[in-house]
Amino acid sequence: MLEWLTMSLLIGAAALSEAQYAPTWESLDARPLPAWYDEAKIGIFIHWGVFSVPSFGSEWFWQDWQGSKDPAYVEFMEKNYRPGFTYQDFAAMFTAEFYNPVDWADIFNASGAKYVVLISKHHEGYTNWPSKVSWNWNSMDVGPKRDLVGELAEAIRANHSLIHFGLYHSLYEWYNPLYLKDRNNSFQTNYFIETKTMPELIELVNSYKPEVIWSDGDWEAQDWYWNSTLFLQWLFNDSPVKDTVVVNDRWGIDIPCNHGSYYTCTDRYNPGTLQPHKWENAMTLDLQSWGYRRNAAAVDYMTIEQLLETLASTISCGGNLLVNIGPTHDGMIPAIMEERLRQMGEWLSINGEAIYASTPWAVQNDTLTPGVWFTSSGGAVYGIVLHWPQDDLLTLASVSSTASTSITMLADSLQEVLKFQEGSQGLAISLPPKSAVSSQWAWVLKMEGVNPVASRSHGSLARRFDTLAVPRRFESLTVPRRHRLDGLATP
Amino acid sequence: MLEWLTMSLLIGAAALSEAQYAPTWESLDARPLPAWYDEAKIGIFIHWGVFSVPSFGSEWFWQDWQGSKDPAYVEFMEKNYRPGFTYQDFAAMFTAEFYNPVDWADIFNASGAKYVVLISKHHEGYTNWPSKVSWNWNSMDVGPKRDLVGELAEAIRANHSLIHFGLYHSLYEWYNPLYLKDRNNSFQTNYFIETKTMPELIELVNSYKPEVIWSDGDWEAQDWYWNSTLFLQWLFNDSPVKDTVVVNDRWGIDIPCNHGSYYTCTDRYNPGTLQPHKWENAMTLDLQSWGYRRNAAAVDYMTIEQLLETLASTISCGGNLLVNIGPTHDGMIPAIMEERLRQMGEWLSINGEAIYASTPWAVQNDTLTPGVWFTSSGGAVYGIVLHWPQDDLLTLASVSSTASTSITMLADSLQEVLKFQEGSQGLAISLPPKSAVSSQWAWVLKMEGVNPVASRSHGSLARRFDTLAVPRRFESLTVPRRHRLDGLATP
Amino acid sequence: MLEWLTMSLLIGAAALSEAQYAPTWESLDARPLPAWYDEAKIGIFIHWGVFSVPSFGSEWFWQDWQGSKDPAYVEFMEKNYRPGFTYQDFAAMFTAEFYNPVDWADIFNASGAKYVVLISKHHEGYTNWPSKVSWNWNSMDVGPKRDLVGELAEAIRANHSLIHFGLYHSLYEWYNPLYLKDRNNSFQTNYFIETKTMPELIELVNSYKPEVIWSDGDWEAQDWYWNSTLFLQWLFNDSPVKDTVVVNDRWGIDIPCNHGSYYTCTDRYNPGTLQPHKWENAMTLDLQSWGYRRNAAAVDYMTIEQLLETLASTISCGGNLLVNIGPTHDGMIPAIMEERLRQMGEWLSINGEAIYASTPWAVQNDTLTPGVWFTSSGGAVYGIVLHWPQDDLLTLASVSSTASTSITMLADSLQEVLKFQEGSQGLAISLPPKSAVSSQWAWVLKMEGVNPVASRSHGSLARRFDTLAVPRRFESLTVPRRHRLDGLATP
Amino acid sequence: MLEWLTMSLLIGAAALSEAQYAPTWESLDARPLPAWYDEAKIGIFIHWGVFSVPSFGSEWFWQDWQGSKDPAYVEFMEKNYRPGFTYQDFAAMFTAEFYNPVDWADIFNASGAKYVVLISKHHEGYTNWPSKVSWNWNSMDVGPKRDLVGELAEAIRANHSLIHFGLYHSLYEWYNPLYLKDRNNSFQTNYFIETKTMPELIELVNSYKPEVIWSDGDWEAQDWYWNSTLFLQWLFNDSPVKDTVVVNDRWGIDIPCNHGSYYTCTDRYNPGTLQPHKWENAMTLDLQSWGYRRNAAAVDYMTIEQLLETLASTISCGGNLLVNIGPTHDGMIPAIMEERLRQMGEWLSINGEAIYASTPWAVQNDTLTPGVWFTSSGGAVYGIVLHWPQDDLLTLASVSSTASTSITMLADSLQEVLKFQEGSQGLAISLPPKSAVSSQWAWVLKMEGVNPVASRSHGSLARRFDTLAVPRRFESLTVPRRHRLDGLATP
Repeated sequence: MLEWLTMSLLIGAAALSEAQYAPTWESLDARPLPAWYDEAKIGIFIHWGVFSVPSFGSEWFWQDWQGSKDPAYVEFMEKNYRPGFTYQDFAAMFTAEFYNPVDWADIFNASGAKYVVLISKHHEGYTNWPSKVSWNWNSMDVGPKRDLVGELAEAIRANHSLIHFGLYHSLYEWYNPLYLKDRNNSFQTNYFIETKTMPELIELVNSYKPEVIWSDGDWEAQDWYWNSTLFLQWLFNDSPVKDTVVVNDRWGIDIPCNHGSYYTCTDRYNPGTLQPHKWENAMTLDLQSWGYRRNAAAVDYMTIEQLLETLASTISCGGNLLVNIGPTHDGMIPAIMEERLRQMGEWLSINGEAIYASTPWAVQNDTLTPGVWFTSSGGAVYGIVLHWPQDDLLTLASVSSTASTSITMLADSLQEVLKFQEGSQGLAISLPPKSAVSSQWAWVLKMEGVNPVASRSHGSLARRFDTLAVPRRFESLTVPRRHRLDGLATP
Repeated sequence: MLEWLTMSLLIGAAALSEAQYAPTWESLDARPLPAWYDEAKIGIFIHWGVFSVPSFGSEWFWQDWQGSKDPAYVEFMEKNYRPGFTYQDFAAMFTAEFYNPVDWADIFNASGAKYVVLISKHHEGYTNWPSKVSWNWNSMDVGPKRDLVGELAEAIRANHSLIHFGLYHSLYEWYNPLYLKDRNNSFQTNYFIETKTMPELIELVNSYKPEVIWSDGDWEAQDWYWNSTLFLQWLFNDSPVKDTVVVNDRWGIDIPCNHGSYYTCTDRYNPGTLQPHKWENAMTLDLQSWGYRRNAAAVDYMTIEQLLETLASTISCGGNLLVNIGPTHDGMIPAIMEERLRQMGEWLSINGEAIYASTPWAVQNDTLTPGVWFTSSGGAVYGIVLHWPQDDLLTLASVSSTASTSITMLADSLQEVLKFQEGSQGLAISLPPKSAVSSQWAWVLKMEGVNPVASRSHGSLARRFDTLAVPRRFESLTVPRRHRLDGLATP
Repeated sequence: MLEWLTMSLLIGAAALSEAQYAPTWESLDARPLPAWYDEAKIGIFIHWGVFSVPSFGSEWFWQDWQGSKDPAYVEFMEKNYRPGFTYQDFAAMFTAEFYNPVDWADIFNASGAKYVVLISKHHEGYTNWPSKVSWNWNSMDVGPKRDLVGELAEAIRANHSLIHFGLYHSLYEWYNPLYLKDRNNSFQTNYFIETKTMPELIELVNSYKPEVIWSDGDWEAQDWYWNSTLFLQWLFNDSPVKDTVVVNDRWGIDIPCNHGSYYTCTDRYNPGTLQPHKWENAMTLDLQSWGYRRNAAAVDYMTIEQLLETLASTISCGGNLLVNIGPTHDGMIPAIMEERLRQMGEWLSINGEAIYASTPWAVQNDTLTPGVWFTSSGGAVYGIVLHWPQDDLLTLASVSSTASTSITMLADSLQEVLKFQEGSQGLAISLPPKSAVSSQWAWVLKMEGVNPVASRSHGSLARRFDTLAVPRRFESLTVPRRHRLDGLATP
Repeated sequence: MLEWLTMSLLIGAAALSEAQYAPTWESLDARPLPAWYDEAKIGIFIHWGVFSVPSFGSEWFWQDWQGSKDPAYVEFMEKNYRPGFTYQDFAAMFTAEFYNPVDWADIFNASGAKYVVLISKHHEGYTNWPSKVSWNWNSMDVGPKRDLVGELAEAIRANHSLIHFGLYHSLYEWYNPLYLKDRNNSFQTNYFIETKTMPELIELVNSYKPEVIWSDGDWEAQDWYWNSTLFLQWLFNDSPVKDTVVVNDRWGIDIPCNHGSYYTCTDRYNPGTLQPHKWENAMTLDLQSWGYRRNAAAVDYMTIEQLLETLASTISCGGNLLVNIGPTHDGMIPAIMEERLRQMGEWLSINGEAIYASTPWAVQNDTLTPGVWFTSSGGAVYGIVLHWPQDDLLTLASVSSTASTSITMLADSLQEVLKFQEGSQGLAISLPPKSAVSSQWAWVLKMEGVNPVASRSHGSLARRFDTLAVPRRFESLTVPRRHRLDGLATP
């Protein structure tokens, strides 16, 4: 199908004036981040696929079993399945009979999340939508017999229109013979890109209009093999989501942490310091896996306290938090995961003003008292306190008061202005009696009229997160237009 | 097999002098309650069986589907299974591959429970042990191919010897043709009792030595059909657990709440007032089901606060609490259930002295402040406070102080003696700052030197819970001995 | 359930005068063979059960796999099924979706058979009818969800009333724990007989009124353990088939070939000589198995020529032929078996007068020419010729002509009287041109007015096969009647 | 992948001199038929695929069920499978555990066949080999986990090297979304051809070197859509089987019966008259289906007499006979099919000289006596007699004797020269006594020195079947060479 490339080389010039972005990272990176993403702060990541059937080990089950031949997986299969049972055989058991996307959307909304990133296709290659280029290895042909992606997109948009819908997509597929062929050819052929990756990405965008494309599985090849910049050019210039879509940074070797709307850098990336570029902390409630594990114990899951600590540190350092859940093969969000999401939502319903649409403050966390993270919003500074201090007295070394300082605690039923005093170690704040505070697990101090102490300057930050509302204009580039790019997606 | 009855009529007299208890309720009820049970206070109930495979609706799945023909169940089957799929077909899917009884025992221990009651056989008739009288409808022949009962008994005894092992057993079986035949014969025949119930109860006792027999499914027939008193006579006089076993009260029409070691009376029985006879509150973490439901939502489970409220009210009124969990078909305790158990254990590790081996106090709950339940132990009175009071000030109308009164809060890191003062409404106690208290969800005041106010007298209680250590002696009764009762169980 | 025995000891005497047969072999053996059986000559044996699912090896699959641990079976299971797969798991796959008993009845009728013997229960213990004493291990609860026995009985009686319906029944069950218990007790207990064998035999007789009971699986215990004579007494005196039923000889150690309506003696018994007692040659079209084998090759099946040779030798020696087929798990009679049955029927439609209601002749097979077997009927002698002789000239040493001799060949389109002449070796008969004869595979000479040569006398034969039409009368014996024998079968 | 076409337009000219055939039917049709094919006469057709799992109705199961919605199929699925069960779900049950290709090869050899045509892929699109362009819808990924095609090719070549190995291949795939897209586009796009059909045909040829390509599924599109002539050009000029391969005629609308190595024209084509072009009669032993039907009755199969009649009429009229069998899902050739093949082989072992390497005679079948078909070979004329004549006297109107006439019957143990005499109706031949003839079902007269009567001239026939041994040379054409055509097949 890459004939569109050849053709575009001949014809594309005519359309030059319409093109905003060129297929170069320099040009693509110049696109401002759509404002909604930085304001949203919290998303839900959903790992669901054929791996949800064995639901053992992790979503890398296939690879760990048959690639690495990890003894734990080999033994699991030998003990529980007949000889010759293949990974593909799991697909028929992906029943999804309890999958109710409206219930899911309600839970996501209750969690306080503002966007959702659903796995459309993981490294196994199985598509959670009826892709034209994944015959008999998709959710309509084998397993659920439903358009899992389409149903969730519809449910979210119909019921919670403030939540943005996004999709995860793996570029590579462990065992796709065309990918393996290209790899054997040192990526000098592109059978796989032509017939699988590009057509399905275009299907996804045209059919489901995702506002996040969370790319993955890029690490074995360069961006030119993946055709990344050409795809992004189309996505940003001409696709139906060109004005609002954001993409991450996994588009080829050396791209992560260097290019993309926002950075994910490494797995479970949470640097703990302010970053110069918008980033996202994708983390998972099951500390050992992104996909559901049937044999996970209660202690394998993050506590709500751990989750809020992660949230606080991420937001304070300019990141978004993408909280991952792993639904079951029958379509349920496990109750313990649902509970965590609802607990987070309960906390956010009280303390959300410290989070949503906040910006990093001059200091990220207090230099004296551990477990206090700062954000700022509307002129106020917010201190997220993870551990209630002894004797109800909190001392902050990174904050100094002024004449106009006023400090309150969110969720304090007494609604009192807190007493404070500058001391040798810092600003000492007298918290209200804990019994008067309705927030659990973590508490937020709202501080107005305060200054940072020994702050590092991060003045450039605001500019970097500029929104599309004030786009920079690019000079016209000689960029070809593609012609049959959307071919497969228009029936 | 009831020939043993006939034979015993002829031969039994010779053994009279050995018999302690006669097969009459009067005699059986006179047996003192073994001390361990009342002291244990908290048990774990485990509903596990073929119903754990559909894990839909409840453990009454078979009956609701094919007996009542409840449309929800009929539709569930029609949508998800092939025509002609029977309940029995589920048994092969009862895989239990993750069943690790040592892990279970550890969780039970962590929960603070002191006994366990595992379903040996529910109304479906499927036995969780390799019964000789349930060929091809037991856990060794079909499904797990393991002795689920035996493995748990072993794991508990080997790892947590202070936990007592007990078994639930259903007398009736919905669809056993021999039971149906007896019922059609107005219970004037006893094919079912002879060939199924009695042999399997004796197998259970001889093989697994349960210290609780939690009988159920008794309500369609009188105790004489079930052969209850003869069985209990054997159990109390001659069985390997004769000195320590306790039984509940479900042994035939009109027996519940009238006879048995302890009473369960009705489903989810929690009277809220002190009872004249030892009783048990069997309740379930999933508010809608005893067996696991795959499609349960987080909100369907009791919160830890609800659980502790149930615990407090039960223990205060003289009951034991039997907390039910429903493992999955593959042998896991669902993480949310495990979490509740661990939370309860965490609470008990701090506040257990108010619970274990406690006795009801003169008053059960405060007449002024809702959510305060009392127990007594070692001379002290314990007030379990479910809601932290406003301004940290708790007023109790049912307690009066004396000159020697001393009040502390368990889990108070300050370990201070609390201030109190008698007021118009009652005894006003100043709690420590909440931030100084490590207990979550509920708090316990330990009050020494206090008196009840307007207490109802329950002086007879102590006697009724007398232990076997001081058994009453019975006059010799002309009671036959059975001879081949244990026949099936001795290979 | 053996209380019926006890009760009958007390009550039975009242009914003495009605009793014909006593529970002794002497008495039971004196019952004349019902005439229909000897006249029928040919029956169809049907091996169908859970073993039809693996359909590998033979109907002894379970025993060969898990009893003997035959490596071929162990390997078959290891290669094709998951670990822990049990024999019981096969039952759910016994689907029988193509089972059309009317089609079966039509095929049996087309085969020329006059009776049918269906497996009601083989050594596996699975009952092909909804037995009350085989809960969850019968064809209504698990697998077909149909009454396989009842449907075939009905189809045969409604469509081909001249075919007699009979049932095979195995006394022992390899893995029934109650049987194993009795065996461990040196058969001094009878749990198994009481609760399984007797109730189900009585169910079978009362429900389906079989005219053959083909007992099997008797070899590990004496007849007194099996309760054989008491059962037969009831069967012959009081059962609904008392006037027409025939039974074979497998009722306990030393009984085969000594007692019973007819003898089967050993497996695939075909003695080749005239027998003093009515007997039956039970043989199977698949030379290696009675149950269906999926991996049988064409050469594993008897050819029609071999089948007719077996038929001729059996009938000539006074036996009946019971031709076994093994239907598939989905309810089909394999086409190659159906073809053999139809070929046999085609042959019998031409040559049946030599078979049905025939009696053995003075000589069974010719002493000179191999492959010529004799029968007699209505005064004529029939020579069944298995190999067409060279030059169309057949010489018989065992037959001599008389003045009134007339010889024709059945199926000779010329219908000519054949030329013959006595020679030095015997009677030489000129056959018609083979192209004029419509019979295939074997041919029948009808010889009137001929004498045997050097015949052995078998004059007693006719008496022994006397029919019930002229029953011997027995003196009254003090024989108890049973009262609740049919208890289980009357709902 | 069609870029190879574009590229070859630019580069191909360099290779012109090597090219024998042009991508035009005129050129391709000029290729002589490889001699082996006409001499082989008899082949075995094997329909095996996912359709062998339901094995109900026919190999068109998927289409009849979900395309036509034939009520018989819809009801079959509703009765026997769960809702939502898809055709793809059958693939996992395609177990092939008994597939022993050496056994198959032995059976084919015993049948007398000289070539084999195995389904490589039917209209369902499932490939019986591990195709790189049919990921997760092939026999290595799902179902047997074996290379069904490769194993049979190997077994035949290793054990019976005289049998030629060929492959059936369906051009279209009912439900392939890329095919449906092309069809919706009036075949003006070729996504399907590029990414599926061409790569897999080339894989097949390069991997398995089939000497027959039996194309099918061509009828919805023109040959230019299927890329037929270009493929054949490669096949005939450059493929590894260029010297010996033969192809049938199903390469696009209007192509059947007009172009190709041999013609198949219509389904079950048996014209009964001599044809001007080499043809093949593909027929199936199950009269109702090409794929196995579990519920086929014995009468649904051709008798050996019908099969020999078909053979005689086909060979006499210049055709080859392709006898179809349908193996089971577990890899067995059903015994009744095996028996027919072995019977055919038995007949051919006696009468093969009338068949193999024979040529049609001047007359095909006798004008007087029905059921006599003629062939010629080595100067002799062979009359295949399907019905033994009355009185052993056969009169032929289409044959006249000469002075040198000599007539014998094959398989006559007397080996006598038969008497004959010219009469008013024709040549009357006295057959030997039937009992002296060892052939069954049909008989062959070998007639030397005879002439046809009223024969139609077919002198051109010999030329038309000229072999590749004397190939016509073509003028050089300006034909491009393809470069990446075999790309996918070389790993």
